Amino acid sequence: MNIRFYNARILTMEQGCDLIRGELWTKGERIAYVGPEKEAEPGTVWDEQIDCQGNVLMPGFKNAHTHSAMTAMRSFADDMPLQEWLNTRIFPLEAKMTEQDNNDLTKLAILEYLTTGVTAIFDMYLSPKDIAQACIDMGMRCVLVSGLNKFGPSVKEMENRYLSLNRLHPLISYRMGVHAEYTCDRGLLEEVSGLIHQYRAPLFAHLSETELETRECVERYGMTPPRFFDSLGLFDFGGGGYHCVYFTEEDMDLFAKKGLHIVTNPGSNTKLASGIAPVGRFLEKKINVAIGTDGPSSNNCLDMFREMFLVTGLAKLLQKDAAAMDAREVLAMATVNGARAMGLADADILAEGKLADLILIDLHQPNMQPLNNIVKNIVYSGSKQNVKLTMINGQILYRDGRFAGDVDPEAIYRKANEIIARLAG
Amino acid sequence: MNIRFYNARILTMEQGCDLIRGELWTKGERIAYVGPEKEAEPGTVWDEQIDCQGNVLMPGFKNAHTHSAMTAMRSFADDMPLQEWLNTRIFPLEAKMTEQDNNDLTKLAILEYLTTGVTAIFDMYLSPKDIAQACIDMGMRCVLVSGLNKFGPSVKEMENRYLSLNRLHPLISYRMGVHAEYTCDRGLLEEVSGLIHQYRAPLFAHLSETELETRECVERYGMTPPRFFDSLGLFDFGGGGYHCVYFTEEDMDLFAKKGLHIVTNPGSNTKLASGIAPVGRFLEKKINVAIGTDGPSSNNCLDMFREMFLVTGLAKLLQKDAAAMDAREVLAMATVNGARAMGLADADILAEGKLADLILIDLHQPNMQPLNNIVKNIVYSGSKQNVKLTMINGQILYRDGRFAGDVDPEAIYRKANEIIARLAG
Repeated sequence: MNIRFYNARILTMEQGCDLIRGELWTKGERIAYVGPEKEAEPGTVWDEQIDCQGNVLMPGFKNAHTHSAMTAMRSFADDMPLQEWLNTRIFPLEAKMTEQDNNDLTKLAILEYLTTGVTAIFDMYLSPKDIAQACIDMGMRCVLVSGLNKFGPSVKEMENRYLSLNRLHPLISYRMGVHAEYTCDRGLLEEVSGLIHQYRAPLFAHLSETELETRECVERYGMTPPRFFDSLGLFDFGGGGYHCVYFTEEDMDLFAKKGLHIVTNPGSNTKLASGIAPVGRFLEKKINVAIGTDGPSSNNCLDMFREMFLVTGLAKLLQKDAAAMDAREVLAMATVNGARAMGLADADILAEGKLADLILIDLHQPNMQPLNNIVKNIVYSGSKQNVKLTMINGQILYRDGRFAGDVDPEAIYRKANEIIARLAG
Repeated sequence: MNIRFYNARILTMEQGCDLIRGELWTKGERIAYVGPEKEAEPGTVWDEQIDCQGNVLMPGFKNAHTHSAMTAMRSFADDMPLQEWLNTRIFPLEAKMTEQDNNDLTKLAILEYLTTGVTAIFDMYLSPKDIAQACIDMGMRCVLVSGLNKFGPSVKEMENRYLSLNRLHPLISYRMGVHAEYTCDRGLLEEVSGLIHQYRAPLFAHLSETELETRECVERYGMTPPRFFDSLGLFDFGGGGYHCVYFTEEDMDLFAKKGLHIVTNPGSNTKLASGIAPVGRFLEKKINVAIGTDGPSSNNCLDMFREMFLVTGLAKLLQKDAAAMDAREVLAMATVNGARAMGLADADILAEGKLADLILIDLHQPNMQPLNNIVKNIVYSGSKQNVKLTMINGQILYRDGRFAGDVDPEAIYRKANEIIARLAG
C-alpha cells in the first residue's frame, strides 16, 4: 500500500518533541517521505490519500511489558496483593490454559492495543508461538520474551524458540528472559546464563517489583535481584528489567553502567499496591526507561494514555514536585525509548526508511483543545479516544473506532467469555 | 421526549452495584419505568426505542468539583506547584477574562463532560450567570458554587446570586461558598457566616488542599482550615470541602459529626504534587465522599474514568493494600455520593420518578471484555470511549461520538483558541 498522509502536524520524535507541518508517505511497510508539503513524482499512484485535518501523526506507542493473553482474567480476581493473587488465583487457571486459548486471548488484547495506539508489544507469556500467530494474523508487531521459570519451559526449549521464532515472520522477534528471581532457583539461572553467553543475548526479567520479592532475594543471596542476576552474568549482553520499583542506588548504577533498560509499569504497580518506582532518579542516572501496561489482569486495562499520566503523576507525587517528569520525557518513554528497549531500531521514529508504525491523534476533540501545547495535551489530557488511526508495518489496522479487514470483534469477545467460563468452571 | 431503552443491563445504584436486565423508559425529563422487560400501555407513542444491546445503563457521573472555564489554560502553565501556578500564571489571566469568555470556555468543558458521561457539575468560577447560561444553552445540569474571596464577589453580591440563580432554570442551582481560607481574611469569613445563618445554607470551600495551606492556617489561627471554618459557624448548616488532602483525624471527626461532604480530586492533587487524600480513612469514618476533576488547567482533563482509577489506585498505594477501596465504593462516589454532596436528590439513582440523567456504557469494546465483573471493568479498565450515550434531563446530548442538536464543536474550539491568544497576548 502506498498511502499519502497530508495536512498533518507531525511529531517525528527524531529529536525531542518538535512538531512540523507537512506530509508523510508510506510505500509498502516503510515510510517513504516525511517533511513539508511536496509534489509526488509524476505517475505516482496512491492507494489512498488521507487528509489529516491538522491532526498529529506520531510513532505508535510501544507497550514494553505485557502478558496479553491474561485478558481472560480481567476483573476476575482483583484487589489482592501480588503473591497471593498469583498463587491462589492466576497460576491455577493458567495451568488449565490451552495453546488455542493463548492465541484467542491474545487477539482480544490486540484489539485493545489498536484502540490505544500501540504498534508493538513486548509480550511475556505461555506458548509464545501461539502469541506470535495471533500477532501475525492480526498484523501486530511483537517482541516475545521468555518467561522461563522452574515450571517451564526448559532452557533447551527456550533455545529452540530463540532459534525458530526469530526467523518466523518480519513482525515477530524473540528475546531470552526469565520470569523472576523468586520463580527460578540458582541452578536454573546459571543454566540460562550459559545460554545467554552462547548467543551473546540480552536478558529480561521481572525485577524488584515488590518489597517482599526484593527483601527475600537479599535474604537468600545477600544481593538485590539486579545484582544477583548480574553476579550470574545474566546481564553481560544487555537486557533489563520490568517494574524495578525497589531499585537501590547501586542497582541503578549497575543498569546505567551496563546500558540496561527499565520498563516501568505504573498502572499495575498502583493497582497491586506494589509501590512507586523512582523513575525520576532513573532518568537522572541516564537509564533508558520505557513504559508497559503489564497484563490486563493486574492493570486492568491496556491503555498507554493512562500509563503516561501515571508515570508523570506518580513522579510528581513521589518527588513532591509538580515540575517533575515533563510530558516530553514521558512521550519519549512511551515511543522511542520503548523501541530501544525492545530492539526495534527500525520502528522508533518517523523518518524516511523507517517502518511505518504510526498513529494519528485527533485534536478535534474537546479534551485536546485549545492547542496551547499539543505534547502536554497528549500526555496530560489525552485519551485513547483521541486515537483516530493505527498503522503497523504500513497497514491501517484501526480507524475511526473500527477494526480493519475481516476482524470480527464480537467473535473474539465471545471466545474470551467462553474460555474464562471453562477455566474457572 | 418519551424514550424506551430496552435490552439493557441496568445499574440503578439504588442499593449498591447490582445489575438487573431489563428496560428503562423516560417521559419528558423523568424516568417513567425501570425494571424487567415489559409491555407499554396500549397507545403509548415512543419518540425513540433504543436497543441497548446488553450495554449498561447507569446514572451519569457527577463531577463534584470543577472550574469549567479554565479550559482556556489547559496545558498553558503546567508543572508548577499550586501557589506559584495560581499567583504567577492563572490569576493574571483571569483578571483579563470577560463574562463572554467565561461562557464560551464553559461550553468547551461541557463538550468534554458529555464525552465522559458527566451529567452534572459542581462548578466554582467567575461570573456564575455566564456559566449558568452556557449550561442552559447546552443542556448541562449545574450546581454553581460561589468562589468568594477578598478580590470578589462581595457578600451582598453572593446573596443576590443565591436569590436569583436558584430560581433561574430547572438545570441550575446555586450554593454558597468561599474560595479558600488563604484567599479570605477573617472578617470576610465572619460576614459570610452571617449570611449562611440568615439562609440556613450549607457552605463549600477548598480545604486543606496543600501542606503549605494547612500549615499556614494553623500558624495564623491555631486551627486547621476545617476547624477554623467551623469555629466561625460556616458549617452550621452543612456543606463540605474540596480536595481535603491534609485532613487530621479531628477534621474527619468534625466532618462525620456534622454530615459534611468531601470531594476528592485525585487527578489534580497528583499533577500538582499536592499529595494523596486519605480517602480510605474518610470512608471508615462514614463521611460522604464524592469525586471531582478540578479544573482543566490543573488536571488537565475532565475525565471521570481517570479520576475513578486514581481514587482506588492511590488508596491502594497509600494504604499499601491491594484490597483497599473496592470498585463498587468508587462507582458510588462518582454517582450517588456526588449527587448527595451537590444537593441533587432527584438525580441520584435510576428509579421511577427520578430525573433522567443517565449514560450508556458500551461493553462491546475490547477493554470491557470478558464480562467477569462489569463494575470492576468500568472502574479498573473503563474509558471515556465506552460512553456511548449521555442523557441529561431526558435529553440525549451525546451519542456514538457525536454531539446532538446544533452544537458546533469546531466553532467552540476556535473560540477557545482565540480567547487564550488574546488573554496571553
